[in-house]
Amino acid sequence: MGYRDELDTPCLIVHEPILRRNVEEMAAFARQQGVALRPHFKTHKTAEIARMQREAGAIGFTCAKLGEAEALADAGVADDVLLAYQIVGEQKLRRLLALMDRITVTVAVDGVDGAAALSAACRDAGKTLDVRLEINTGLDRAGVLPGEPALALAREVVQMPGLRLTGIMTHEGHVARARNADELAEIAQRAGTAMVETAALLRANGIPVDTVSVGSTPASWYTPTVSGITEMRPGTYVFNDNSAFRFGRVGVDGCALRVLATVISRPAPDQAVIDAGSKTLAMDPPQGRAGHGYIVEYPDATIARLSEEHGVVLLPPGLEGLQVGERVEIIPNHVCPVVNLQDELCLVRDGAVVDRWPVVARGKVR
Amino acid sequence: MGYRDELDTPCLIVHEPILRRNVEEMAAFARQQGVALRPHFKTHKTAEIARMQREAGAIGFTCAKLGEAEALADAGVADDVLLAYQIVGEQKLRRLLALMDRITVTVAVDGVDGAAALSAACRDAGKTLDVRLEINTGLDRAGVLPGEPALALAREVVQMPGLRLTGIMTHEGHVARARNADELAEIAQRAGTAMVETAALLRANGIPVDTVSVGSTPASWYTPTVSGITEMRPGTYVFNDNSAFRFGRVGVDGCALRVLATVISRPAPDQAVIDAGSKTLAMDPPQGRAGHGYIVEYPDATIARLSEEHGVVLLPPGLEGLQVGERVEIIPNHVCPVVNLQDELCLVRDGAVVDRWPVVARGKVR
Repeated sequence: MGYRDELDTPCLIVHEPILRRNVEEMAAFARQQGVALRPHFKTHKTAEIARMQREAGAIGFTCAKLGEAEALADAGVADDVLLAYQIVGEQKLRRLLALMDRITVTVAVDGVDGAAALSAACRDAGKTLDVRLEINTGLDRAGVLPGEPALALAREVVQMPGLRLTGIMTHEGHVARARNADELAEIAQRAGTAMVETAALLRANGIPVDTVSVGSTPASWYTPTVSGITEMRPGTYVFNDNSAFRFGRVGVDGCALRVLATVISRPAPDQAVIDAGSKTLAMDPPQGRAGHGYIVEYPDATIARLSEEHGVVLLPPGLEGLQVGERVEIIPNHVCPVVNLQDELCLVRDGAVVDRWPVVARGKVR
Repeated sequence: MGYRDELDTPCLIVHEPILRRNVEEMAAFARQQGVALRPHFKTHKTAEIARMQREAGAIGFTCAKLGEAEALADAGVADDVLLAYQIVGEQKLRRLLALMDRITVTVAVDGVDGAAALSAACRDAGKTLDVRLEINTGLDRAGVLPGEPALALAREVVQMPGLRLTGIMTHEGHVARARNADELAEIAQRAGTAMVETAALLRANGIPVDTVSVGSTPASWYTPTVSGITEMRPGTYVFNDNSAFRFGRVGVDGCALRVLATVISRPAPDQAVIDAGSKTLAMDPPQGRAGHGYIVEYPDATIARLSEEHGVVLLPPGLEGLQVGERVEIIPNHVCPVVNLQDELCLVRDGAVVDRWPVVARGKVR
């Protein structure tokens, strides 16, 4: 029996040959650009794919939350993690200090208050923590602005006991606002240039900057090409998703992860209901095409509405199919939150389930 | 140390006195209306709150997915579950037959194909399954239309071996489209009337209809008041959320569940970043007010944007506070998917953590 009939739905399947090709392609690109590859763990959250990335040449991993880094350490896969996130609060400082006994950890800082608390905790523990300045190159989330504001913060941080400033980092996720491929390349390269110029400014003021790090899968082919960037941190590339469709960079055959779903109701000629709702597909808005995911077998159908356990699919006039009991594969709009909703990934190859990998960092939001 | 300092964030706290009051109020309302209360388990997914609901008088529970009903049976809390969902596929039919050996199960049907598959499975197993027709009273998700279409389906279902038609049900979730309280009441009562009229039509044609069931927390105060409704299935009422604010029915002091979050960055005078993003607050759109949740301590601040681990909060001019390290309580837009993202609920009372309850049905989407 093939995987499409064998598995209960909704579930996540990963086409293993596509996954493997994606992992190798990005590693080859990083090598070719001469930049270090430090993939973001949050996309897959599995020990097995982390191992695959290491074997392909990743120097370490990026995590957002401490719990993700702890999961990587527990799995014995990573000895070098960048927490691309501000670590704040007594509980987290204790956990950070404990993690530093197990693996090499670097933490993002973007303000004096947060850095001072890290410094005090490390000084009291007699430890030294590597930190990187998080630079806001346009996403307007966390981060200090490039240029003079970054320099001012760097001057403070280098004075703080217990901290060692080793570089700067940004997440140029605002490339998602681009309306076409040229604009995406332009935004990415502007972000890369701001990073390189900020690094130069810091160095000119006597502050050593070893690492100049950027990260975002859609921007992967642009930001790291700016001369002076030393590290890239893509995440989504292992699976790809609808956001990668946007400008034709990746097609369906580059999307490794799909939601396997079953049609459970056919209440009207132009409407089908699938058993994948927001608790499976997540509610991240589409980029570049309508609906809550791309149905591989019916690209002209639209997943128009989601409630928690229902996906309402609208069929264009004349489209046959999507009968009760039929199964479909859906490429999600944003793959990372979709993985976070499940306990395992079902690996498939040549039409058969070949493995099941636990999502070890599912729900690790602390 | 109080719970606000003691707990690591982001996490879910439940104010136990509010929870208890909400559970009792809805039970009292159902008694007063003379309708049976069959709460939806999906909101809280915990054995402890299910037990509380039973003790307050719930006759059984509603679930969407088999996995939720299995979790309830495993916890020993429920002996009577309505699956308000179409059960489709070989794996699920096997699980349904196994569950029928453990507890009383009723399943929704809304079409001949799905009902025929249920019938064949039950007939082959020598069992009889109670089914209810799911009626589409306006939500336009699953369900057969009221009146003649429902009668036509009922005529088919009553002929099917292995099935016993025991009633009709609807989810009048389309009350969320109302723009004011009067409109909400009107939509709810229209749905209730359609149900009662459909039940009358079936009975007039010799088809027994024991149960006429409706369900939706915002509609709770309206639909069940229509004469002839015999059962209500609210879910969210145990916690309430932003959707309940809309027309003033419930205030902050009626919202039992909050996300406890920490400010991790203060990148600009008018901007704070909290450690609760879409992986904690979920991405369900707001109803009636802007943003991705209601910050209890700062009702004038707006959670303007979410990424997975970041919530970007915009502060109106002149608002002080939200400094790095500060903690806030957030009432989510939609509480059900928020619970589904966490492994436990932290019960608090009089400023202290008094219990931790596992979310036993988290991720049970199959």
